[in-house]
Amino acid sequence: MEKRTLIEDLSQHVGEIVTIKGWVSVRRDQGKMVFFDFRDRSGTVQGVVLPKSAAIDTAKDTRLEYVVAVDGIVNQRPEKNRNSKVQNGDIELEVTGLTVLAKAEPLPFDMSETGFNLDLTTELDHRALTLRHPRLQAIFKVQAVIIDSFREYMKSEHFFEFQAPSIAPATAEGGAEVFKVKYFDKEAYLSQSPQLYKQIVMTAFERVFSVNKVFRAEPSSTTRHLTEVVSLDAEMGFIDSWKDVRDMSEKTVRYILKQVAERCSKELAFLGATLPVMIDETPTLSLTEAQQKIFEKTGRDSRGDKDLNPEEERMLCEIIKEGTGSDFVYVYGYPTRQKPFYVYPNPEHPEFNEGMDLLCRGVEWLSGGRRVNDYAQLMEHVEKWGMDLKKIEMFLEAFRYGAPPEGGFALGAERMTMQILGLKNVREATMFPRDMHRIDGLLSQGDPDSSS
Amino acid sequence: MEKRTLIEDLSQHVGEIVTIKGWVSVRRDQGKMVFFDFRDRSGTVQGVVLPKSAAIDTAKDTRLEYVVAVDGIVNQRPEKNRNSKVQNGDIELEVTGLTVLAKAEPLPFDMSETGFNLDLTTELDHRALTLRHPRLQAIFKVQAVIIDSFREYMKSEHFFEFQAPSIAPATAEGGAEVFKVKYFDKEAYLSQSPQLYKQIVMTAFERVFSVNKVFRAEPSSTTRHLTEVVSLDAEMGFIDSWKDVRDMSEKTVRYILKQVAERCSKELAFLGATLPVMIDETPTLSLTEAQQKIFEKTGRDSRGDKDLNPEEERMLCEIIKEGTGSDFVYVYGYPTRQKPFYVYPNPEHPEFNEGMDLLCRGVEWLSGGRRVNDYAQLMEHVEKWGMDLKKIEMFLEAFRYGAPPEGGFALGAERMTMQILGLKNVREATMFPRDMHRIDGLLSQGDPDSSS
Repeated sequence: MEKRTLIEDLSQHVGEIVTIKGWVSVRRDQGKMVFFDFRDRSGTVQGVVLPKSAAIDTAKDTRLEYVVAVDGIVNQRPEKNRNSKVQNGDIELEVTGLTVLAKAEPLPFDMSETGFNLDLTTELDHRALTLRHPRLQAIFKVQAVIIDSFREYMKSEHFFEFQAPSIAPATAEGGAEVFKVKYFDKEAYLSQSPQLYKQIVMTAFERVFSVNKVFRAEPSSTTRHLTEVVSLDAEMGFIDSWKDVRDMSEKTVRYILKQVAERCSKELAFLGATLPVMIDETPTLSLTEAQQKIFEKTGRDSRGDKDLNPEEERMLCEIIKEGTGSDFVYVYGYPTRQKPFYVYPNPEHPEFNEGMDLLCRGVEWLSGGRRVNDYAQLMEHVEKWGMDLKKIEMFLEAFRYGAPPEGGFALGAERMTMQILGLKNVREATMFPRDMHRIDGLLSQGDPDSSS
Repeated sequence: MEKRTLIEDLSQHVGEIVTIKGWVSVRRDQGKMVFFDFRDRSGTVQGVVLPKSAAIDTAKDTRLEYVVAVDGIVNQRPEKNRNSKVQNGDIELEVTGLTVLAKAEPLPFDMSETGFNLDLTTELDHRALTLRHPRLQAIFKVQAVIIDSFREYMKSEHFFEFQAPSIAPATAEGGAEVFKVKYFDKEAYLSQSPQLYKQIVMTAFERVFSVNKVFRAEPSSTTRHLTEVVSLDAEMGFIDSWKDVRDMSEKTVRYILKQVAERCSKELAFLGATLPVMIDETPTLSLTEAQQKIFEKTGRDSRGDKDLNPEEERMLCEIIKEGTGSDFVYVYGYPTRQKPFYVYPNPEHPEFNEGMDLLCRGVEWLSGGRRVNDYAQLMEHVEKWGMDLKKIEMFLEAFRYGAPPEGGFALGAERMTMQILGLKNVREATMFPRDMHRIDGLLSQGDPDSSS
């Protein structure tokens, strides 16, 4: 068998006979001749089967999404037929041989590049097929680059990768929104966050990161809620203040955006997406300052509230964008008791903590901050917050035996993908989204309880 | 505050005043002087606090695992005190300032490099602390390199990374050993394998990989069983035969071993581990040939059995090692009905399939093979195996619309770590092992059912 040539390399083989393998994306039967677009993992190319070609009979029977091996001659297109805007727009494959490797049934809907226009429910119902469309391929390519460049940047800053567990013992926080697992004759839970684990591992490896699943049993069907998401988590020791965490998170996001810009320019163009602007120094406001600013600019008075609500987050982002050109803004300093026990209170104003969020285009992208590292202070918090010591014993042990000043942050991969690409629903940015009503198929349609 | 110098960089600063930050690993109070070993993420260095040092009083009060910031002068050690076998064995930090950043309680057991000798139960009960020991740091460093270099190699071969889901709908296979999740008012399961998902995504991206969690509710307490492990999964389209999958898996393992050798030489030496030998072409036997060989060499007659049992796997590995020097051996061609419905039957001998396993040092490291890609053949299998169509509809859709000849393989990260390092129990190779009896703490000691 001839060696396979990838479609992206065809332009290096003009005048040569090659073999490509892929799927049929487009087929136009013009009576005497048949035109195809062939697709493999590296791109697409037009093919033509001339009347005298040995492949003409097979070509007549070949349908969309058939998997084929194609022998052909790589021809330069005549000047007038060239299209510099598409991949391989200056060449064409003159098909001399066509072998069907696998057939496909007639497609249930239009999968062409421009004709694809499904409502989200249908798109998800047919995820196995719709994943082939260039729009979805572009989305998940961008997501893969986001995740990969997060890891890349972390490694470049000496962060150690660990695998955070998914099965969790009795929950230390948020009992209501946690999934229960029948664990032999006991109960376990699905992890809502690797928070306590990353802090533990930080006390051994100093700088750590993890790409892991987190699970939330929120009975919400909004465009933002999923029950299973990919969390990008980092934690670092030996900080001087929460600002070190802020700076590291800013550098991380900046690196990710740069990588997406460089490695996904084609995908961004295809999706019509514009990357958010991160200026040299992202504006950084305390919650109090943010509330004051919103009040001054809009008259809306949320001063004293414990957090910004979604409407206020949008307002703040607009104000900052207008004033500085930045799509990003950090907000820090939330009321201490509103956040978990491990968040570090500001030593001078202990009613506020050193937690922080990074907002972009009206939505929270990242949250983090400094944590309590002193064991005595931690035990005070544990008591004040009414924590069950038994349930966090492993965590407490890590801090009992010496932990440096530290902090960390977390990003959601799906939400970041959605926001970067301007998608309307986080499900579009999730290959196999799980929510209240869907695990692959709609739950009401199936009958998961009847499995043997 | 002075800029922090990492301990691994100290030798570039001989004669200079530096600040390091880290933990106290060793402390020897010699009355007038105090000696320390300080540890940060980059290594260890000896420090000495002389009687006249401003730090001497603090040094007297400083205990093991205290977190400290240390100012000092980097001195060359006198010739006779140099030790070329340890990091920074030719230098010493003369401590001029010592600040305690966090205290530690007295250690519950000996954490010194040589004195550390806990039974596994105690080691796991105190994972938050024992993770700091160089032995455990070395193990998890090796594991991080295994996982990272798997991804690296996959990317170099054009494999696309996707995130396999953990929450699964009704199970298509192996109902008994699956964990049930209460999913709102329905039931869901924890994924036992990304098998069907990676095949689906392959039909869209051609070559795909995933680093993901898999879950098994096996009520076993052996040295090899965990309920949650990290699976390294790959799937590739457009193969000519199962041998393409074999070759890709061999190149992957070879690359991982090479990376571990290069990037973990210090860790391997510390752990006394010898990497297994992979010769130029790993011996590859059909199950029938393997059984015949075992029979000829040992008299043990397993000819006709559906698989090798653990004892036979050990025998085969010994025979191959003796005959070829290879620590690895591929076995392929298992009885068709013994394996899942998606495994490809040998077209000439359909009673055997084109599944394969890679054994090393007596244990299975990897399994995979060619899959059925033809939709009609798949539907035949589905019927013959008695599958519930509804439960695999998404999978079937992917193949209904054209799927190339394909195959894939999977490796367990923890088992591979265990085997490479010659550890006796897979729990040693798992940062937070989960089994029947333990999720962090022992389940019988806690009371997970009483959580509010």
